Amino acid sequence: MTERELREIVARLHGELTRYGLVAWTAGNVSARVPGRDLMVIKPSGVDYDDLSADNMVLCDLDGVPVEGDLSPSSDTAAHAYVYRAMPEVGGVVHTHSTYATAWAARGESIPCYLTAQADEFGGEIPVGPFALIGGDDIGKGIVSTLTGHRSPAVLMRNHGVFTIGPTARAAVKAAVMCEDVARTAHLARALGQPIPIAQADIDALYDRYQNVYGQRPSPAPSS
Amino acid sequence: MTERELREIVARLHGELTRYGLVAWTAGNVSARVPGRDLMVIKPSGVDYDDLSADNMVLCDLDGVPVEGDLSPSSDTAAHAYVYRAMPEVGGVVHTHSTYATAWAARGESIPCYLTAQADEFGGEIPVGPFALIGGDDIGKGIVSTLTGHRSPAVLMRNHGVFTIGPTARAAVKAAVMCEDVARTAHLARALGQPIPIAQADIDALYDRYQNVYGQRPSPAPSS
Amino acid sequence: MTERELREIVARLHGELTRYGLVAWTAGNVSARVPGRDLMVIKPSGVDYDDLSADNMVLCDLDGVPVEGDLSPSSDTAAHAYVYRAMPEVGGVVHTHSTYATAWAARGESIPCYLTAQADEFGGEIPVGPFALIGGDDIGKGIVSTLTGHRSPAVLMRNHGVFTIGPTARAAVKAAVMCEDVARTAHLARALGQPIPIAQADIDALYDRYQNVYGQRPSPAPSS
Amino acid sequence: MTERELREIVARLHGELTRYGLVAWTAGNVSARVPGRDLMVIKPSGVDYDDLSADNMVLCDLDGVPVEGDLSPSSDTAAHAYVYRAMPEVGGVVHTHSTYATAWAARGESIPCYLTAQADEFGGEIPVGPFALIGGDDIGKGIVSTLTGHRSPAVLMRNHGVFTIGPTARAAVKAAVMCEDVARTAHLARALGQPIPIAQADIDALYDRYQNVYGQRPSPAPSS
Repeated sequence: MTERELREIVARLHGELTRYGLVAWTAGNVSARVPGRDLMVIKPSGVDYDDLSADNMVLCDLDGVPVEGDLSPSSDTAAHAYVYRAMPEVGGVVHTHSTYATAWAARGESIPCYLTAQADEFGGEIPVGPFALIGGDDIGKGIVSTLTGHRSPAVLMRNHGVFTIGPTARAAVKAAVMCEDVARTAHLARALGQPIPIAQADIDALYDRYQNVYGQRPSPAPSS
Repeated sequence: MTERELREIVARLHGELTRYGLVAWTAGNVSARVPGRDLMVIKPSGVDYDDLSADNMVLCDLDGVPVEGDLSPSSDTAAHAYVYRAMPEVGGVVHTHSTYATAWAARGESIPCYLTAQADEFGGEIPVGPFALIGGDDIGKGIVSTLTGHRSPAVLMRNHGVFTIGPTARAAVKAAVMCEDVARTAHLARALGQPIPIAQADIDALYDRYQNVYGQRPSPAPSS
Repeated sequence: MTERELREIVARLHGELTRYGLVAWTAGNVSARVPGRDLMVIKPSGVDYDDLSADNMVLCDLDGVPVEGDLSPSSDTAAHAYVYRAMPEVGGVVHTHSTYATAWAARGESIPCYLTAQADEFGGEIPVGPFALIGGDDIGKGIVSTLTGHRSPAVLMRNHGVFTIGPTARAAVKAAVMCEDVARTAHLARALGQPIPIAQADIDALYDRYQNVYGQRPSPAPSS
Repeated sequence: MTERELREIVARLHGELTRYGLVAWTAGNVSARVPGRDLMVIKPSGVDYDDLSADNMVLCDLDGVPVEGDLSPSSDTAAHAYVYRAMPEVGGVVHTHSTYATAWAARGESIPCYLTAQADEFGGEIPVGPFALIGGDDIGKGIVSTLTGHRSPAVLMRNHGVFTIGPTARAAVKAAVMCEDVARTAHLARALGQPIPIAQADIDALYDRYQNVYGQRPSPAPSS
């Protein structure tokens, strides 16, 4: 894949964030690692989703420093970059403040596994990461420490929002879409009573089958 | 109706699932029995809704085995196929994880009949089926055992989602749309207090009238 | 206005029901009285919203009997017709099962006046009408007896849905849109605590001002 | 910027209110101060959002009196005008009845700061203003007295809705979009338990950083 093709893919994937209502104004972002190079492509800061194109995506090194052009990358670039440095198997990262998932994050609660679709995609609960301020490596560290050794490709960062990872940017976008879908259904289920948990053996069977059928995600990275 | 026309109908009906917000990513599917033959047409696995067309629908036998082409059918094909084998009056099957209906399913609760529209379309409560793992006939058996002898064309499969049936694929899609509509309204009604149940005699009168006026659905199949 | 223009207006106004998400499948309908004649124009039964046009609107007399063409009118035609017979100042009627309003209707609860926009448009609470079976004049009678002498152009028919009236079909559609908007906000306000009621004198002042500024609705009909 | 360009900007910004579902029928409005002149551009009263254009925006003086053309300005013009007179640093004002924010307003509750995005944009809680009747300066006074000396560019007017301000109309629209986003997430967070508050020092750090990075908003006006 050329860098040009990757820019087009990343620009276009932002359309899935708006299609599923995961983002307001300019608040979410998608990035992808340039295969085989220590580079990443990410959304520019503060540009409307309608105006994104291959041309205005920002190419950065894995410290989050732009390597060409005049546009500033997303203000969340440091967190994306930290993940790429620490988790070599990750090819795409997505960040949103999607509503229901962020509501769980505001309570600091992980999402229990009430749904077979959650067992398939997330392998169990969706975990909560620590509160962290923007502006250094704290958010990145919180994402990596929570997701390392965990089946879930999504983490709810406390009082903040969602980060998802995947072998490709598209897989990370899928995880962001499914995370909000699961968060919404689990919210509604619990709003009127107590959902029935799924037995751990059934969660394991569902996850194993789904990963084999679709099998596009490598095993979790060793602790960084 | 030719097989070609049926492929076009099934492809296009997926557009109703996205229009009404019943599906996320590639998670729901529609199928139709080929009239007079032991064949069915179903969504291919993992293809975006935007990319569905008559050409990429998958023609399968009633064991769920593709009879032509290279595309794999939906991972839910076994459940659809089981329903067609067990319920000869069924011409269409739909599966979704629509949010509100699935929230009831996560609690293992049937939806009581609080609405005249529910009495019309479902003839009373919308029932819950058993927890079942994907990969064999368990889901299909759960659908058939729950819907056989029941007025409702929709079943909430526990911790999973919705399956609906109909004499045609279009009727099954309508039932999926109405199931989510009813599930959402019933959820909201109960969130702030106790809805007023509809008397059984009134439910019966509404259902009888609706079936006669629109009268397109045959009587329930005998126990399989 | 010609009958042709009225058909176009009524067909097009159904687009507002879908735009605001007030209807699922084919479940809501708009009608208008033909000015100066004992006739009404209404949606055909069971036709998709996408397929509505001036040509397939159904012209009926005020007993709900079609006076030309082959299409059947909406199954709610008897209720619309009853309203036109009993309330000569009404020029348009709308029926929906919009979600939040219908949730209040399922509990048999009127919507208290928590919002200045509700005071403006509805002059206070939105009332509940009786449970009534379709197929005779019961629904029409319930609408008329509830709205006669009441400021509100909307009634929540118990376990059923919303009917709204207006001097024109457009005004009735506006009332249907605002009814759902008010029902949703009031639901959410009450979900987390106790909303603050608006004092009756303030409701009166708001309603009087709004009716004078926009002043397109005649005073309520005398009891029928 | 010419007055013509400002009219186009204001007309087009209303499209963001509909895109994000902040308005029903014709109930919200955007205005902008004409830079360097005692004039403002505002939505006409009762015109559909689909029909807004540069040509039908209404040019008013800062008492809210139209200075050209035949169209009446929004019925909320007096409140906008009062803000421009009292807060010279304000270049844009937006009013909506957006659902979740208005639900907090109906309870007379400010929105506590549970989210880093809220700390960024609003600098802490979103405050509640007084109940005020339309038709004089009471709404304007309530907005100005609440927002003066407060970090938040948004105020929840009790039992009414949201007003937001900004150095430009676009900034005020962004604040209206983010206010509803924050109000919805905070509502859902609290619906299932107790969200974790963010420490004041962290709120301050987030707000300071965000204002410096995006730094387009002047400091609050002195008390009027």
